[in-house]
Amino acid sequence: MNRIITIGREFGSGGREMGVRLANELGFDYYDKEIITGIVNHTEYTEGYIREVVEGNVRKILPMTIGRSLDVDVDYHIRQMQDIAKAQTEVIKEMAEKSECVIVGRCADFILEEENEKGNIQLFKLFIHASMESRVRRCMERRTEAEAGMTEKDMEKQIRRIDKERANYYTNYTLRKWGAKENYDICFNTSNMVIKDMIPYIARLF
Amino acid sequence: MNRIITIGREFGSGGREMGVRLANELGFDYYDKEIITGIVNHTEYTEGYIREVVEGNVRKILPMTIGRSLDVDVDYHIRQMQDIAKAQTEVIKEMAEKSECVIVGRCADFILEEENEKGNIQLFKLFIHASMESRVRRCMERRTEAEAGMTEKDMEKQIRRIDKERANYYTNYTLRKWGAKENYDICFNTSNMVIKDMIPYIARLF
Repeated sequence: MNRIITIGREFGSGGREMGVRLANELGFDYYDKEIITGIVNHTEYTEGYIREVVEGNVRKILPMTIGRSLDVDVDYHIRQMQDIAKAQTEVIKEMAEKSECVIVGRCADFILEEENEKGNIQLFKLFIHASMESRVRRCMERRTEAEAGMTEKDMEKQIRRIDKERANYYTNYTLRKWGAKENYDICFNTSNMVIKDMIPYIARLF
Repeated sequence: MNRIITIGREFGSGGREMGVRLANELGFDYYDKEIITGIVNHTEYTEGYIREVVEGNVRKILPMTIGRSLDVDVDYHIRQMQDIAKAQTEVIKEMAEKSECVIVGRCADFILEEENEKGNIQLFKLFIHASMESRVRRCMERRTEAEAGMTEKDMEKQIRRIDKERANYYTNYTLRKWGAKENYDICFNTSNMVIKDMIPYIARLF
């Protein structure tokens, strides 16, 4: 029975680092961006469009309408979003069936609960979070070239925006509150944690 | 530098079991009821009265007044509660200074943060929670003689009442939300966990 670890994470909390390192430590596959490639193969939509949908930018997706009823367009786009959600479910279930893996984001915790209850997989749902102060520090240290001019205040704004998008997407998809501890097996606060040093011990939990 | 593990817990989630077992596994002292004995020795109040205060039964403590202004009595009792809170802080700080230990409940997480920030101790703050279904099941299996006639519905009512008292006490003392994941290093959901089997692995985290 495949062990599957899903990781939900606040932006800048080190959730992705924890996922990559856990997968390495346990010899599991690691899936993050690969899910989008999977959805591309399961649908007729472009990668850019899918990315906007799964990153929660719904306002960016719904286009201006000229000479058409808004209702029709909204329905059309909601249908597209439902297509993508369905493909996402299929892709994630296929990944969990194929091998032991760590899956970051994409409501994988919710999607795989049914398979876990049926006894087809053994699911561990993690959520990684940290104080705003520690997340800003982490993101400032890891700034990309494009982010070079950003101040701490800009970074905090970006963190809040991305978290809000993640929360919206998660709630739309699952009707649950994003990050509510009752939906996860373990929540790690990384504010005072050196992730790299903790991985061998965290890996033993699974 | 003493490592101190504090455990906040929902009633019936197995937080106490986890505390006892972790202390055993790590060779730490374990404190729970001992804190009340400590407060008795630090104040002039009876154990029964202290227990009512620290278990959050504020309504039970404030007595009916005959022929006196209510305001005066409320002030008097608030002063008593402040005395007890102060003694609780002293007792918990003394415990943390004396030896490596696990402390269950009593806002110890909040009380010891200052010592942790000063570098006097190394503090790990845990919160243990579980689904209502799993907590009712756990409490029904472990019914005391006095609880023998209780139905699952009665048990759920008792769980909600005790959690409410714990939450009130914690919020009065700390001005924080009880059980909010950001106040803890790790939150464990024990709904699908056999605590006994997990202890050797959880202990390695510290």
